[in-house]
This record gives sequence, C-alpha cells and structure tokens, in this order.
Amino acid sequence: MPNTLSATEAVRKIHEGTLRSVDLVQACLDRIDETDDEIGAWVHIDRDAALAQAEEMDKLRRAGKPMGALHGVPVSLKDIIDTQNLPTERGTPVFKGRQPSADAAIVERLKDQGAIILGKTVTTELAFVHAAETKNPHNLAHSPGGSSSGSAAAVAAFQVPLAIGTQTNGSVIRPASFCGTYGFKPTRGVISRRGILQTSKNLDQVGVFGRTLEDVALLADVIKGYDPADSLSYPRPRPHMLNGCQAEAPVEPEFVWLELPFDDRLALDAREGLEEVMMALGDRIEKIAVPSAFGGFVDAQRVIHEYEICDHLHEMFSKHWAQISADLQAIVERGRQISHSQYEEALEFMSSANEYFEVFFNDYDAVLTASAPGEAPKFGNGTGDPIFSTIWTLCGLPCVSLPLLVGENSLPIGVQLVAKSEQDDRLLRTANWLQNKLGEA
Amino acid sequence: MPNTLSATEAVRKIHEGTLRSVDLVQACLDRIDETDDEIGAWVHIDRDAALAQAEEMDKLRRAGKPMGALHGVPVSLKDIIDTQNLPTERGTPVFKGRQPSADAAIVERLKDQGAIILGKTVTTELAFVHAAETKNPHNLAHSPGGSSSGSAAAVAAFQVPLAIGTQTNGSVIRPASFCGTYGFKPTRGVISRRGILQTSKNLDQVGVFGRTLEDVALLADVIKGYDPADSLSYPRPRPHMLNGCQAEAPVEPEFVWLELPFDDRLALDAREGLEEVMMALGDRIEKIAVPSAFGGFVDAQRVIHEYEICDHLHEMFSKHWAQISADLQAIVERGRQISHSQYEEALEFMSSANEYFEVFFNDYDAVLTASAPGEAPKFGNGTGDPIFSTIWTLCGLPCVSLPLLVGENSLPIGVQLVAKSEQDDRLLRTANWLQNKLGEA
Repeated sequence: MPNTLSATEAVRKIHEGTLRSVDLVQACLDRIDETDDEIGAWVHIDRDAALAQAEEMDKLRRAGKPMGALHGVPVSLKDIIDTQNLPTERGTPVFKGRQPSADAAIVERLKDQGAIILGKTVTTELAFVHAAETKNPHNLAHSPGGSSSGSAAAVAAFQVPLAIGTQTNGSVIRPASFCGTYGFKPTRGVISRRGILQTSKNLDQVGVFGRTLEDVALLADVIKGYDPADSLSYPRPRPHMLNGCQAEAPVEPEFVWLELPFDDRLALDAREGLEEVMMALGDRIEKIAVPSAFGGFVDAQRVIHEYEICDHLHEMFSKHWAQISADLQAIVERGRQISHSQYEEALEFMSSANEYFEVFFNDYDAVLTASAPGEAPKFGNGTGDPIFSTIWTLCGLPCVSLPLLVGENSLPIGVQLVAKSEQDDRLLRTANWLQNKLGEA
Repeated sequence: MPNTLSATEAVRKIHEGTLRSVDLVQACLDRIDETDDEIGAWVHIDRDAALAQAEEMDKLRRAGKPMGALHGVPVSLKDIIDTQNLPTERGTPVFKGRQPSADAAIVERLKDQGAIILGKTVTTELAFVHAAETKNPHNLAHSPGGSSSGSAAAVAAFQVPLAIGTQTNGSVIRPASFCGTYGFKPTRGVISRRGILQTSKNLDQVGVFGRTLEDVALLADVIKGYDPADSLSYPRPRPHMLNGCQAEAPVEPEFVWLELPFDDRLALDAREGLEEVMMALGDRIEKIAVPSAFGGFVDAQRVIHEYEICDHLHEMFSKHWAQISADLQAIVERGRQISHSQYEEALEFMSSANEYFEVFFNDYDAVLTASAPGEAPKFGNGTGDPIFSTIWTLCGLPCVSLPLLVGENSLPIGVQLVAKSEQDDRLLRTANWLQNKLGEA
C-alpha cells in the first residue's frame, strides 16, 4: 500500500511516474478512515481539496512542468500552524472554528515544493500540557505524548508519511519517542514560525516527524529558510539536512553521555537500552559529569516558558479563563507570579548555557541521551515528562530522536542525539552513522 | 583578479577555501573605484557593510557552519528593489533619500544563501523610459540600455559578477544585449516582486544578469520561490534552473524563427548575425509567418503598461508632477486617456496570447529572435527599442539573451531565446546546446 512508503520513496516514484499522487493521497485517506476513529490523530481534513491538489500535481508531471522536492507527497500540520483553507483551532474551545486568512510561512514553502496539505493533526491545549484525545497507535491504552500528539501518531499509524509539529520543551522529541517515529527539531531560527501560535517567543521551535531519517531531513530542508518576520530567524545560510544525513562520516564520530541531575527519572528499560547502545559504541563514547549549573538550566526553561505564555496570551487568558483547562490555569497562575527580573535572570542563564555548549561541542559530535524517561505513559496520565528535552530546547540545539529501542511493554523508546547549534547536517550524519553501527552490531 | 571570476567559479573557490569573500568583495570595490566615475552604474554602495558581510561569510566557513549557494558572492540590485540597509530611490528625485524599512523578498532569499548585497545599481526614472547617466562599458559614447541600466553595465564592467533587474517590456533582455552579458527573465510568477516598485502589476517581472549561462541560472534558482504577497506568484513547484542549463538535450532541439511585423526595425548587422546563427542550425530551425494578431499583442502590452503605471502611481504623479521627466509626463498623459474598457480588452488580448503560446510551444523548444534591434544607441538617444521583448513579456514567457554577436561598431548584440511558460529549465538547456553548437561551428 502506498501509504506505507517513506516520503523519499514516494517522491522518487512520483517523479519517475510509477506512483500517482492521487493514489498515495487516497491510500492515506483510506488508512485514516480505517484507523482514526480509534487513534484520533486528526482534527481537520478536506478530502476533496487534498485529492484536487494531488490531481494537480499529477497533471503537472504529465504536462512536463516542474516538480518539487515533495511533489505530490501528503504532509500533516499540527493544529497551531495556520492554513488558509482549513481551520486552525489550537486545541482549545476558545479558538473553535478559527479560520486564518493566510498560510504560515512553512505552508508557503511546502506548496512551493509540491507537497499536499492533507490536514491538521491534534495538538494538546495551546501546545502545552493538557492532553487531547489522541491515542498511541502502538497501544491504544497509552498516550502518544504531546504536545504534537496527532502529528506523531499519524506518522506512526501510516496515515501520512510526514508531519510537522513544534517544541517549546519536549513536544517533538517526546511524542516521536513514544510513537516510534523519527523526530527532528532543527537549530532554533532555522525554520520560520510566522503564522504559528506563539507560546514562547524565545523557546518555540518547529520540528518534523517521519518514518526514516532521510524523510525528516528532506522535510526540514523544504521548510527551512530565513524570514525576517520571525524574530529568531537568522539571515545566513542554513544546514543542508539531506546532504548531511546521506554523507559519510570522515572519521568515526565522538559521542558523549552526560550524567544529568535528573537521570533518576529514567525508567529501567530505557536505561538498559541506552547502556546497550553505549556498549556497542565502545570507546567512541565518553561519560562525563556535568556542572551543577545544569539544574539551573531546567529552571530557566520553566521560567521563560511560563512567563512568556502569560505575556503572549495575556488577553486571551483574561477573556476566556473559564474555557482554559485546570492544568493550564495552574501554570498560568504560577507564571503570573514570575517577576520581570526573574525572567531576565532566566534569559541570562539561557545565554550562558548557549555559550557553554558552543565550546562544549568542540570535543564531541553529539550528546547521546534519552528522548524520554521510558515508554509512553498510560492514556489519562498526561503526555509524559519532557525533562530529557528541556536543556536542548532552552539552548535551541538541533536534536533528533531515533526509534531504536523497545520497552518492557513492547512500546517504542527513542534514543536522542544532540549537536552543536547550526550543525544539524553533522547531527544527521552522526545519527546515520549510529544507525548503521547498531545495524552491524 | 577575483572580480573577473564567474559567480559559479567564485562560490566553488569560496566553498573550497581557495578564495576569501573579503578578497572578492574588495576586488569588486576596487574595480568600481577604478571604473565607475566613467560608467556611472552605481547609486549606493556601503563599502563597510559589504566587507563586514563578506567577513562574516568567511568566518562561517572557518567555523564549519553551513554555506549557501551564493556564499560570499556579491550581487547588485536595481535601485527599485527595497533594501533595509541602503536607500532605494527608484531613479527619481521624488524618492531622493527614501530608506525602506524592510528588504524585498528576493533580498531575504539572497541572504539565506549567503550572498553579499554589494549595493544598488542605476535604474532609469521609475524603471521606465527616461535614461539615467550610466554609460555602456564597451564604449562610453553609447547607452547601456534600460531600464536596468546599472545592473547590466556593472556586470559587463566586471564590477560585480551578478545583478538583478526587472523587465516590464524589455528592461533586462535589452540592456543585457547592449552590454554583452547574459540576461535571463524567468517565467512570470517564478520570482516574488514583494518589496519592488510596482509599475505594472500584470507585466513587471524580475530578471538577472551574469557573465555565464550557469551564473544567471544559479542566481534565478536562489531568488525564485512562491510568495502569496505577490499577486502573480503561483503555489506550485518552480523550474530547476541550474539543472536545466547543465542538462544534456535528449535530442537536438527544434528552433523557430517568427517573421514578426516589426522585423524592419532590425539593423543590418543584427540581421546578418542572426542569419549566420540560423545557417549553423540548418534544419534544426523553421521559419514561419505569424498570425496578424501579433501586431495587436504589441498594442496590448502598451495599453496595460501605460494604464497600470497611471493607476499604481496616480497619487505620486499628482503630488510630484513637476519632478517627473517630460518623457514620462507624455506617457502618463497618454495613459490617462486609456479607458477601463480598452484596458480590459488588452487584458483579454494578453489571455489569448498566453493560450496561443501554450499550444504553439508543443512543436518547438524555443523561439530564436533578436534581443534588441541592433547595437546600443549613442548615449543621449534613449535606451533603445524594447520591441523584440514586448510580446514575450506580455505573455510572461521565459527569455534569455546570449551575448553571441558583435555589430559593426564592435559593440555586442544578443541572441534571444524564448520558451514555453514554466519551462525555464528547458530554455536554459536549449540555450546551452545552442552555445555548444555554435562553438563547434
């Protein structure tokens, strides 16, 4: 069935003429029809519009017109990413029926490369902690993680080959880990956030989901780009993701395992799996203790996140307080107690963390760490602990979750690699090397 | 001297580390210092900013950070293209000192790929007919053509490897022909016009100048892209320019020469040169007579151009009439006499011309035609006749001017190729084939 193809395979077949985009899109829609009553990954789908877009892409091919890097390949978008032709409700009754007048910047870039916007996937409430109804496709009794819950679940369930989410703490890497997909969050500033709900101007970052490493690299290449409308977008060249993940490592990479102050939160099966990976790496990995400042980095992320969401969404919280979940109300009440000087102190902590890692990564290709504390929690017990993403998100470093481990309940567990800022290409090269190494082992 | 390198060579050397961007930029600045008092191609240059940008690009390379497709390569922009860090005065005292607050969309894309914005090159008054002070680098007694006068002259004079201009009638192809550079105007809608002076919403198109075919292809690839802020930008994949110009033609291309109703305007030396090209092509070229409607196409372009410039710049003309040249005043006075129904009729003519060429190009790879009626006119006698571009600009077809001929005064004359809409890649492949063919002949 074409819906099980990777995006890279699908686009190659579409370019060759051995697969029609309409057949691929129809297979995805059929799969959604079969499975989504149980999984609940999707909020909005316009079947006719998606098939019409696919038909147009097929027609362009037949007419000998140009084809794009994602020509005819369907993509889903977390429902905080604005779309001109579909509502964007942000996971809250406050924005029920909200129809943006313009596409987000990344949607423009998807269209430029011939991607089909299949629909919008479920987000937790305002991309924060309060869970939505999406289930984990590997076991419906478990959570898919959040906040990009539907994006991860849809890719894992073969409903769509590619999905886009966002991460302010661990909202791409964690659901990728729980759902057994690849998750890739490029360096902060690589991908424009214009037209995406802002919960934290300093921390919100765009990330992608796919079922192969090449797929997440390809999707990130398509949506990356400088955009002065995003305050953190930078005006200089960006990493070549696909080139990176296809490149040979010139020498065997150097990994590092950091003893983190919150390692006691790691479940036994996750710890054992990571130990096996480290065994396979032998002398390619070094274990080191971290400065005590690392505990402060976690606090700094929380202070910035909570202060900024209260600041950015102040008016909305005032007007619609009764429609906000108790989970989020509690966070907002706490956030409102944060003083401006505490916030500024946290921003200084973030700057010093950035400087620390600029030097730190001179000695290593990648940090090897957990993507999440273990398997997905039971449905109803929240979306899981983002702690293993917190520091990297604070520092805007590129991170990738590789679906390499299986836990005691047969649920997937991801292995996370983190690299130096703007060296996303090297991160993906290292990830590919690691996969090959473990494949041989 | 690095300023004589093509952009393709320069970027390769910069990537390899055998050329520093600062040395390239300095060589261009030195060349400008030596030659621009006579040529007058530039309006604004910020030497320190350009060298600082170059230094940053060199630093990124040394730090192992990502490099772009135009990493460290200087580009000049026609002075109707908005730049945040340099004034944009549009060739008229009306906009003296005008400093835009934002970059044009294409400037964002240049920065994303590491290009250096070297400065702004001279435009005729409001990108229309009234000549500026720029001279032709091949002979200072001659015009460089217009309206992208400085862009063409700067590239021809080895002051900068790449330049961007615009064409509403013949303002890229004609100066490229007169100055002996390559000029390439992609299909209408391929390149965003956000942040560029609008003189005709239906006809204004962006084009590029370089000293090799690969260079103009590379630059067009960098600045192309979908942008909903431009009413004519289309949401689907764009041609791959560099791939096109590097591709082998699968079979020998089919050219066509159209007997045009204004062929009597062609100078003897241009006609003879074109005849020689046709001789070399032998049975690869067919000569055909055109429907009488072609005369109407030329009128339609004039009606749309004159009606729209009056419409778009109405307020400016009212307020600053005394500062407008007599040349343009005469056009505006004529344009104001055009009724809305005449304008609509011209738009219908444009639609029917578009439909005509969609079918026409099923039989041919490219139209072979003159880029201009002959050599550049003497300075002071205007910027030359755009008639050989009019129909193609009206229809938004991709056009390229190749500097293949020399006239009786030893001035360059271009050969123009025109292809089907959105087949810019095939146009460039055909152009490359033609160059190789003539090189062998």
